Order: sequence, then C-alpha cells, then structure tokens
Amino acid sequence: MRASILTIGNELLIGQVIDTNSAWLADNLTRLGFEVIKILSIPDSSHAIAQAVNELMLQSDLVISTGGLGPTSDDRTKPTLCDLFGGHLVLHEPSLSLIDQLFRNRGLPLTETNKNQALIPSSCTPILNYHGTAPGMIFRKGNCYLVSLPGVPFEMMNMFTEGVRPFIEQNFSLPAIVQLTVNTFGIPESFLSDKLSDFEKYLEANSITLAYLPSPSGIRLRLNATGNDRSRLSSLLDLAVNELKGLIGENIFGFNDETLPSVVSQKLRGKNATLAVAESCTGGYISHLITQLPGSSDIFKGGIVAYSNETKQSLLGVNHELLINHGAVSKPVVEAMLEGALRVFQCDYAIAVSGIAGPTGASTGKPVGTTWIGVASRETQKVELHTFGNLREVNIQRAAYTVLFLLLKLLK
Amino acid sequence: MRASILTIGNELLIGQVIDTNSAWLADNLTRLGFEVIKILSIPDSSHAIAQAVNELMLQSDLVISTGGLGPTSDDRTKPTLCDLFGGHLVLHEPSLSLIDQLFRNRGLPLTETNKNQALIPSSCTPILNYHGTAPGMIFRKGNCYLVSLPGVPFEMMNMFTEGVRPFIEQNFSLPAIVQLTVNTFGIPESFLSDKLSDFEKYLEANSITLAYLPSPSGIRLRLNATGNDRSRLSSLLDLAVNELKGLIGENIFGFNDETLPSVVSQKLRGKNATLAVAESCTGGYISHLITQLPGSSDIFKGGIVAYSNETKQSLLGVNHELLINHGAVSKPVVEAMLEGALRVFQCDYAIAVSGIAGPTGASTGKPVGTTWIGVASRETQKVELHTFGNLREVNIQRAAYTVLFLLLKLLK
Repeated sequence: MRASILTIGNELLIGQVIDTNSAWLADNLTRLGFEVIKILSIPDSSHAIAQAVNELMLQSDLVISTGGLGPTSDDRTKPTLCDLFGGHLVLHEPSLSLIDQLFRNRGLPLTETNKNQALIPSSCTPILNYHGTAPGMIFRKGNCYLVSLPGVPFEMMNMFTEGVRPFIEQNFSLPAIVQLTVNTFGIPESFLSDKLSDFEKYLEANSITLAYLPSPSGIRLRLNATGNDRSRLSSLLDLAVNELKGLIGENIFGFNDETLPSVVSQKLRGKNATLAVAESCTGGYISHLITQLPGSSDIFKGGIVAYSNETKQSLLGVNHELLINHGAVSKPVVEAMLEGALRVFQCDYAIAVSGIAGPTGASTGKPVGTTWIGVASRETQKVELHTFGNLREVNIQRAAYTVLFLLLKLLK
Repeated sequence: MRASILTIGNELLIGQVIDTNSAWLADNLTRLGFEVIKILSIPDSSHAIAQAVNELMLQSDLVISTGGLGPTSDDRTKPTLCDLFGGHLVLHEPSLSLIDQLFRNRGLPLTETNKNQALIPSSCTPILNYHGTAPGMIFRKGNCYLVSLPGVPFEMMNMFTEGVRPFIEQNFSLPAIVQLTVNTFGIPESFLSDKLSDFEKYLEANSITLAYLPSPSGIRLRLNATGNDRSRLSSLLDLAVNELKGLIGENIFGFNDETLPSVVSQKLRGKNATLAVAESCTGGYISHLITQLPGSSDIFKGGIVAYSNETKQSLLGVNHELLINHGAVSKPVVEAMLEGALRVFQCDYAIAVSGIAGPTGASTGKPVGTTWIGVASRETQKVELHTFGNLREVNIQRAAYTVLFLLLKLLK
C-alpha cells in the first residue's frame, strides 16, 4: 500500500519553519506497513492544493495532508477540498462543542471566526480535534483516501493517533513490518560498505532492505523487513544482526534509539561508577552531551573546561613544563589532564580532550583538526591522536563522539 | 523566478531523518529573490528521481536537489542524472585530489569506492566539495538549471554558499530583496505582538512583511522588502528598525546572524575582558555556546561544570553550610559560585547557574524549572530567579540564553 504526505503552508516554502510533521507521519505510516512514496510541501494556494491532491491521489492509496486549516483567510485547504470533493459546508455539532469548551477553558469569548471552524464539507468524515479548533476530514475518491489534518504538530499527532490510526487499521489490509537500527561508530561509510558487500547480497536474497545513515555521531544501519509473518521477520532480522556482529561487532555500540552518550551512561550506571571530563577544544560539549540525558547526576561528577594553559595548570594540575615542551595539544598534556580529572573529581573514569578545532590555532606539524583524546580508569589510560577536518563545529562533534566511543571500549 | 527543492533519500520517506536541508535551502533561495513553489522528497530510486527531476524542471527555473550521492549502491542520483542528461562518467581531477587529501589527512587509505566519487557525468558543471567526497553537479535543460548537492547538511551548506550562490547570481536576474532580522530576547511572543500592532500596520502600508521566528534563544523578527530599487528598500528598512528600537529597544540584542553568545563575546573582546562559567544544571551548555565560536579563547578562560555538591565546594569554594541551609538551587549558592569562578579563573566576568532541569529533582517550593542565574564583574553581581517549564532540554537552553542576556545587560 502506497502513501503520500502533503504539507501545506507558505511558511514551509520560505524556509521559516522546518517541516517536522512529515518525518513524524512518514515514521508512523512506515510502521503501519505503508510504503511512503512522496512527501510534498506546497504553499497555501487553492490551485496548488487541488493539483497536488489530484496528483498524489492517483499515485497512492492514502494521502495525509497537514496545514491550511486555520481560521484566517490565508488558509485555503478546507474550501479547496470542499470544491474538489463536492458537497457543501455543514455545521459539525460535536466539533462546535469542543471548540466552545476550549475557549471557555481559556476564558476567552467564542467569536464567529472560531465558530466557523466547526463547518465541514458534507462529503467528508470528520475527525475530532481535542486540542485545537480545526476538525480533521477524511475524503474518498476511487480507492484512495485523503486525510486532512491541522498543521500544529501536537494537534496533528494526537488526531493521527486517536482518530486516523484506528481508521487506517479498519480500512486497509497492511503487511507486517519489522525494523531495527544498528548503531555503529569508528568506521567510515565507504569502509563499512566494502565490509558489508556480501552481507548486502544476503539481505537482498532475504528481502531485507538496508539504509546507511551517517552523521558525526556515527553511522546508523537501518534494517527493514516486510512480509506477512511478523515472527518470521523478527527471526530473519535477528539472524541478520548476528551476522553483522560477526562482521563489524567492534563498531556496533547500540541499537535503535541508543546513542553513544546514553550507552556510556548506562554502562557507568551498571558499574555504579562515576565520570568526569577535562575538555579543552570541545569546550563543554562532552559534558553537555552527557548532562542532556535525564538522571545524569547519578554518574556524572562534573567537568572542567580548561580553555587556557593557566586553567590546565591551576585546576587540573598539568605541569607547566609539559605545556612548554610539548604544547597544550599533545599526548603528555592529555595524560596529565586525565590524571588531574580523576584526582580533582574523585571519580572512577575520566575523559580528556585537547585539540585544534580551528579555524585558527594551527602550527607546524599540527594542522587544524589535530586532536588528542584520552580516557582513563584508576588503573589504565588510553590516549589516541586523531586528525579531523577543517570545520570547527564538526571537529568539536567528532572529537566528543570519538572519545565517548573510546571510553565505551574501556568500559567493556 | 521559480525554484523547487528536491530531497532524495529513503531515510526521509521512512521518517528516520527530519529534512532540515529543505528549510535551509528555501530560506536561502527566498533571500536570493526566488519564489519556492515546491519541496518534494522522494526515495533513492532511479525511476522516482528521473520522474521528479523532469516534472520539477518543467515547472521551475531552478531545481536544487540534495542526497543520493554517497559511494554506496543504494545511492542512485548520479547514474540517474547521467542517463537523464546524457554524456558519460569522466574523472574530475580537482575532485579526486580533494578526496585524496581528505583521506590522507585522516590517515586512511583511498579505496576504489572513494576514488569513484570523483567520477562525474560529462554533461555537468562540477562544484567542488571541500568537506566530503561527493562533488556537486550543475545540469541545464532548456531554460532550467538543476543543481545536485550531497545530502550531508554541512557539506551541502558550504557548497551552496561557496559554489551555487555565485553561480545563481551570475546566471539569474532576480528582483531586489532587502531583509533584516532584528533579534530580541526576554519578551514573550504574545506581548511582542501586542506592542507591535501599530507598527505592523505601518509596515503593511509600506509593503514590508514581518515574520516572528521564536526559539529558546529568543524571538527573531524578520523584515522583508521586495522591489526594484535596493537603496530605497534599505532606507525603508532602516526607518522601520529605528521605529522598532523606540518600541522594544531594551529587548533587541542584535541583528541578522548575531546571537547572544556572539554579541556577548564581541562586547567582552571590545573591553579586552575575560569570562568564566560555573554551571550546574546547564551542564556545560553555556561553555559550549561560547566556545563554538571561532576565536573564543581570546575571551573565554574556562568553565567548571559543578554537577555535584562536592564539586561546588572543592572547585568553586562554595561553603558547605550554604549548600545545607539553602540547597544547591538557591541565591546564596549562585552568589558563591560567581565569587568562586572569578577567583579560580582570575577573570573579569563570571556566569553561574544552578537549577532543576528535570524531569526529577523537584522539591517543595522548588518545582522542575526552578533556576537561579547570576552574572558578576569584579565590582558587581546580579542574580535572578526564573521558573522555566517541564522539558529538560528546553530548560537547559532557556537558562543558558537567559543568563547570557543578563550578562549582556551588565556589559552595556
């Protein structure tokens, strides 16, 4: 079954707003067993709406549209759909009473404009909106359904979950879908694909699709199996994951929503151990990645952003001569930062990073991107040199995730 | 002139990734004077790519596509465009040497798969990619240009700015557009719009559009004037900005790309002064916001992420009794953190934050969101209580930007 998503709104076409509705809908439709073939964004224009709806309905079994249902005259979706599917506007009493309730709760008067939100085309099946004024509408043409929802994300999501999903489950017969994401780090995409070329053939023979999703936080591998028998699909994916573990086990750090910060935090929690960070070029970003997670105070003692040589000396006890003889971006200094962090924070594990994030700061033999990273427990230290790229922001991210991956290896 | 955006990638259609490229491109194309008429996302399928390119090129003067240029077999954009526009794949030497350089910098071998990234259709004009392996490609058919860029956001953005924008400015004759963004902080959207209701009427009478762009880092007000005479448009906007300064001057902290961290850093640089940060609930995020900016070592001495009471005592010298009597989230503790930061880092200005980011940690009289923020110079201190909301991530962001705004007032 094929589905399309249509997002309507001038704000999308001028780039004022990032379209988050589409990804949310695409994820939900995919999980229901649809193949999403197109996501289209168009302005609030009757002509554009009519054209897009006609076109997408010819190509799909289901079209979900969002947006253009507001009470102001620049919102064109409802009148256009009424023209397109026929019928006339009728008052939908249950929607009116919800709207009335909404305004009473907010202590606001119910104006004529707001009342008109409860008018819907007689040709549609309405969907109640418990969080806003615009009801949803389901239309049918031939074998295709069009569902029109408001563009406000939480209204749309609630209506999809409460009203649209049950409708879909009743009216479509969909295949079983099992998905699994394998999260990797420390191997570039091209090396990964070389290593996995036979594996990909194996997947293809078993009708499993594989997608590579690269970012500075690693490459996620998404496996997707579609069929009729959910338990058979699950076993197939389990086998595939075992195969993957044999091929790139060292690079796999987690599955699905797990991230390097979340996996490292879980490992520390499992060991009842604590962590501190001494960072230079990453400037607080590593601490931020860890403290972003709820409950991080269990395992995180704190961090020092040692952005100057003085701070490295005074707060972390890095020896002045080390800094003079080797420079701040050097192995001995990162080693001393690790020792300092363990001592100062009285913790079980430490992270240290010193590098040249750029664009300035390069010197002979130390180009922009040169970064020493290190991790330590009370017993052992691991320090590595990495040379990242030219972009400051990306260098900061790569240094942070690379050192978290190194820590994970130490924690294993 | 009409433009369309085509984003290619299975990850978009299964909702695994939010399409941020489209909004960025739509914003940039709109600023250049294009009317963006469609944003379309399709899977990595030759058939879908060919159909979409043909259709969009018929409707537009410019089509920008992103994605599908990776080295793996699931990436279909390059072979499809080569079929569509004719010619054959040829080696682009300048791209090969950039790729070679990239791998040498990372100390990795250059495999055949990576070398193949430098092959481009003979029918295109290449765009160099300084940050990744896939070159961009410009094709022409009739009066329409198609520009194909990689989907990795930072590669795409750099190539658009360095390669595509100059090409557009040379090859299209576009209307004059003058835009100015006024960046505000510390006033909620509904209050702002009440204060600006007369001003909006004045703008409308002068054909200037106004957009509100709210985020945890403040509300940006974007003024846009379109016409033929650039200097007349500029004067109109200057007048409008003067008007705005009279209405909400205290809340305006900068213009266009200026952010609170960049404006604060500039102010400090202007005074030849230095800053340090003592943060608890913001967990390194304030330090990260400042050190993200190139050259921040001029003004940033460092930071302490004091995530435990022990750290507040040992590193910042916060008195044990203060912590016991008032709790870590209290005015006296933030005052002591400020003093500690000034002393430890020997700097001119300090920032301190202690709060309950959530979801746990609330106590009687201190709900999630309770946050004490403070700033200090050697002579003076300013400490404020704020109560933010329930979302951890947003609380961290709001605390960080609110304290930077407070510091800016102290620096004025």
